[in-house]
Amino acid sequence: MIGRSIFSGLCLLGLLGSWAAVSRAEPAAGAKRGADEGAIRQVLDRQTEAWNRGDLEGYMQGYWKSPDLTFYSGGTITGGWEATLARYRKRYQSEGKEMGRLDFPGETIELLGPDAAVARGRWRLVFPDGKQSSGLYTVILKRLPAGWRIVHDHSSAD
Amino acid sequence: MIGRSIFSGLCLLGLLGSWAAVSRAEPAAGAKRGADEGAIRQVLDRQTEAWNRGDLEGYMQGYWKSPDLTFYSGGTITGGWEATLARYRKRYQSEGKEMGRLDFPGETIELLGPDAAVARGRWRLVFPDGKQSSGLYTVILKRLPAGWRIVHDHSSAD
Repeated sequence: MIGRSIFSGLCLLGLLGSWAAVSRAEPAAGAKRGADEGAIRQVLDRQTEAWNRGDLEGYMQGYWKSPDLTFYSGGTITGGWEATLARYRKRYQSEGKEMGRLDFPGETIELLGPDAAVARGRWRLVFPDGKQSSGLYTVILKRLPAGWRIVHDHSSAD
Repeated sequence: MIGRSIFSGLCLLGLLGSWAAVSRAEPAAGAKRGADEGAIRQVLDRQTEAWNRGDLEGYMQGYWKSPDLTFYSGGTITGGWEATLARYRKRYQSEGKEMGRLDFPGETIELLGPDAAVARGRWRLVFPDGKQSSGLYTVILKRLPAGWRIVHDHSSAD
């Protein structure tokens, strides 16, 4: 009888081990999703805040600091964090250019797996003279050691 | 001693149970990735083949047949499979329009998790009169019961 209860106990331990292994792979899904979406929204909100105080380097912190970052705009592929910053500088900080006030009406964030997400919607820039420019964007984010970062940006103008 | 060997044996069983649970969650990663990428490429290749024989309904089989499909082009958001088909019909099959010959030079496919992927690159249409139109695309695919399907398309023109 003692042998049998040890056996049952150890089987239970085995089952618990299996369960622990499975549940480590899939922790409370809803709570994790909410936390991830919140963390992503924070990264995107910080980008907007940085843009709106004229801080392009701060805005760029939301992007993967890698030569493998890809930025699609119109017909042009820009490759790498440095080149993307240079492109933004040329378009928004060179002589006679304004950064304007940025917002993202109707942004949606969707998790695509444990470590990837897509954010998409409309971007809008309002300039000091009242002119606007706007369009659509699709950005892919990944969970990196530094946190959630945009690894691919596809933006198009109206 | 017998008690101890039973104990060791059962611990081993427990460990095997845990290992089986973990490896079910993460099967041979490289092989699975290759199979998924192949399945995605097949869906995209079938779309191209359908387009190039003038079969717009066939082309549309690569998209999620849902009102939640999103199609971003220029400044316009088209929502749903039916509306996306109608948009393609109007642009490429109405009076005096041509579908042209479609290809995707330099397409890359990247898995973003067990059930999601992104494909991106350049699209190009060559028309019978020799004129071309081209641009960039980013499509999000998901593994659905019907197979891999595009759930979001962002295409922009040069």
